Amino acid sequence: MNMAEKKIAKIAPELPGGFRDYPPKVMIPRMRMIETIRETFERFGFDQLETPGMERTEVLTPEQSTKVIYHTTTDPDRTPKKKLNEGDEERQRTALRFDLTVPLARFVAASISEIRLPFKRYQYGNVWRGEKTQAGRFREFMQFDADTIGSDSMLADAEIIALMVETMRALAIDQFQVRFNNRKLLNGLAELVGFEPTITTPVLRIIDKLPKIGRDAVLRELQKPPLPEGEFASTAEGADDIESEYGLGFTEPMTETISKFLDLSGSTDVLLQGASDLFCNVADARRGIEELQEIVTALRAMNVPETFWVIDLSVARGLDYYTGPVFETFLTELPEFGSVFSGGRYDGLVQRFLNDAIPATGASVGVDRLFAALEKLGRVKGQQTKVQVLVAIMDPTLTITALRTVGTLRNAGIRTAFWLGRDSSFKAQLAYATAMDIPCMVLIGKREVAAGTVTVKNMTARTQQTVRAEDVVPCVQDTLPHVA
Amino acid sequence: MNMAEKKIAKIAPELPGGFRDYPPKVMIPRMRMIETIRETFERFGFDQLETPGMERTEVLTPEQSTKVIYHTTTDPDRTPKKKLNEGDEERQRTALRFDLTVPLARFVAASISEIRLPFKRYQYGNVWRGEKTQAGRFREFMQFDADTIGSDSMLADAEIIALMVETMRALAIDQFQVRFNNRKLLNGLAELVGFEPTITTPVLRIIDKLPKIGRDAVLRELQKPPLPEGEFASTAEGADDIESEYGLGFTEPMTETISKFLDLSGSTDVLLQGASDLFCNVADARRGIEELQEIVTALRAMNVPETFWVIDLSVARGLDYYTGPVFETFLTELPEFGSVFSGGRYDGLVQRFLNDAIPATGASVGVDRLFAALEKLGRVKGQQTKVQVLVAIMDPTLTITALRTVGTLRNAGIRTAFWLGRDSSFKAQLAYATAMDIPCMVLIGKREVAAGTVTVKNMTARTQQTVRAEDVVPCVQDTLPHVA
Repeated sequence: MNMAEKKIAKIAPELPGGFRDYPPKVMIPRMRMIETIRETFERFGFDQLETPGMERTEVLTPEQSTKVIYHTTTDPDRTPKKKLNEGDEERQRTALRFDLTVPLARFVAASISEIRLPFKRYQYGNVWRGEKTQAGRFREFMQFDADTIGSDSMLADAEIIALMVETMRALAIDQFQVRFNNRKLLNGLAELVGFEPTITTPVLRIIDKLPKIGRDAVLRELQKPPLPEGEFASTAEGADDIESEYGLGFTEPMTETISKFLDLSGSTDVLLQGASDLFCNVADARRGIEELQEIVTALRAMNVPETFWVIDLSVARGLDYYTGPVFETFLTELPEFGSVFSGGRYDGLVQRFLNDAIPATGASVGVDRLFAALEKLGRVKGQQTKVQVLVAIMDPTLTITALRTVGTLRNAGIRTAFWLGRDSSFKAQLAYATAMDIPCMVLIGKREVAAGTVTVKNMTARTQQTVRAEDVVPCVQDTLPHVA
Repeated sequence: MNMAEKKIAKIAPELPGGFRDYPPKVMIPRMRMIETIRETFERFGFDQLETPGMERTEVLTPEQSTKVIYHTTTDPDRTPKKKLNEGDEERQRTALRFDLTVPLARFVAASISEIRLPFKRYQYGNVWRGEKTQAGRFREFMQFDADTIGSDSMLADAEIIALMVETMRALAIDQFQVRFNNRKLLNGLAELVGFEPTITTPVLRIIDKLPKIGRDAVLRELQKPPLPEGEFASTAEGADDIESEYGLGFTEPMTETISKFLDLSGSTDVLLQGASDLFCNVADARRGIEELQEIVTALRAMNVPETFWVIDLSVARGLDYYTGPVFETFLTELPEFGSVFSGGRYDGLVQRFLNDAIPATGASVGVDRLFAALEKLGRVKGQQTKVQVLVAIMDPTLTITALRTVGTLRNAGIRTAFWLGRDSSFKAQLAYATAMDIPCMVLIGKREVAAGTVTVKNMTARTQQTVRAEDVVPCVQDTLPHVA
């Protein structure tokens, strides 16, 4: 290909895999959702923070093993080996944030002398993860977080749960449940059952299969001998919906204790009493149960309806950085979407950057996942445009008159467009307004100009009326739906 | 350093150079500004689009020479040479967007069968440029663009100018001027003066020094012999505020014509007439002048006050992709901030991705620059928090009563916080509310509980009153400033 050919070759207007555009018909309801979340978070006393999309790689590094980070560089063809040896260069290596919590911890540590604790902040924005693009997984997605920094009171955790409930209700969702638990209680399982704390995660992962494979299979798997050292499990081993060939070598008495743990059930108060009895000799777990009790008391005082929250001892929220209460939100009608609003307490994260321990708790809305769920439930009202009125240009000689009316309508706060298309026929303008669902058209033809009038067409009711030009604003307002 | 030491070593909570955080006291006025721009753009009939932060490198490439792009990769230590040869890999190379215009052109080309033209969209979001970090230059900054795609009518350009004026006024700025010109007229200079069109850019760059070095120096520089081929200019040569040692070798008659061009002045109509006379034999420039005339007619019809706009024949807007009208906005009180809202017509950009030519025009607010200017002018009202009322917890036994009131206030739409700090003294709570400028506190002590009352403290007026508990909402509302 020579240079001349190269010049006219078109570049494919494609996005990289895992990325997407949000055209107006998606953005309009999406922004409505974001505005509702913002309004609710602010009502609960959270203020907005914004941190950059890029951080020093070192700041993000400890999570690097579980999340695939996007590294950023202005020089993609550098020889990495050489520069890696230079300390200054290393300190300036950058990557895109994969969540908003690690940047918050970094911000708090950097600003500790300037901010007042407790610091209640919300932040929303895109995060990036270079994961395999499959099954609706995106590499750029929005998170919307609320966190309280500098309070070790369970009131802060209760407030987060109350916020989660109120946010869902503000989004007109009533079929949902916030489930919460406490990591301290789960950490107490090792002492209660008698296994090494280091295998708590594999234990919880097997327990997590309960709803899919049933209690007998869970207990059986726990008893199976472990995978011999040095051997590798087949890919099916990691699956969360089948009983594995290998287990953890639990003894009969150990699975009996697990069985008692799985038996814990009943109403909130009965459950807490049962847990309290079972873990009576495990100090750490007892503290976890007390914390759950404090949260329950606060939720009741704040009058958060009990239909919307429940203690669920199986909630673990992965491995991450959680140290106390953990929260999840499931849509009752769409449990397969997983949790749409999750979080927990992470008293150790700020310490990564600071000598002082700063307690913290919070939760994050998966905006895109929640939006997809609402779409599936038919709760998203698509909208082509927010334009309320299209002023037609009936004739090139009448352009000036039309533009004057445009100015008048806009000054009155009405979202107004006028016709800019190549086809200047009235038919084309009408077709555009119809296709875009614009609720109102204003027509000013030669007759109207002569009579000092305008014709206002209600596109929904398919009616029209001719009024004096100076009455155009109230007449247009009458045709508009009450909620813009 | 052994592993144990490494584990407890703190990571510096620093940002990479050229990046910054926006704490709430900055975000609150910043979001107010963004909301005002959004509202204005929507009133003018623009709808929101969002495109990803990342694009395929190839999509951004033609601008790469002038802007320093951030490349992104999940594998920073790959050997670049090898993979560069693989076509598929090349197509999936990604980079961060450096503006919102190129992604718009890519979106339009990709969605041409789904969108209706004219397509009026706005978009705001961060863009990234890996430029040298100096003198307040940032590597991440926000752009806020409005563009009309698919209209070659000058009414679309006039509407953009009207939008620019109205946006500035909506932001309560009245000391500003939108200056506009037409690239066709500037392109006609080559024919008028008799130089090669390829050197139009250096000619304009010298003319651009006019306000700094004066007319005589400009004409003198144009006449100086050019830099001999193969030699390199000293760093001072590129400076825009001194007369250069080398010129373009213009003859006397050539600079005489330039001089006539520089003489064009006067009111809008006088200026247009003068330009029309001077360029009477240059077809391209004549078309440019006609377009300017059409814009002026439309601006007058839309009643856009003439104090806010002016034709300025020196406006060129760099080299970029502009093909017709170009716009800039200067703050009269802070000209040194440069243009805060700029744009132009770019009829060729979508064609990079598509066989059809799709005309386009638009403008972009430099959100951060404009915000910095407003700060300098003292127009930014800092605000620590949007919290309207802090409910004090007077005593741990009164927590439940306090939380009930919190719920009541929030349900009434009042932005409410309660005390979560470690120091539970009333003094600490009062100090917090004072430091954060929270306008109202609600106190419910033992006496209030016994009497079924609450005490509402107006923190601004330093007054307080005790009312029946059921009257807490109207009483708090009375203490709040009218504009939240």
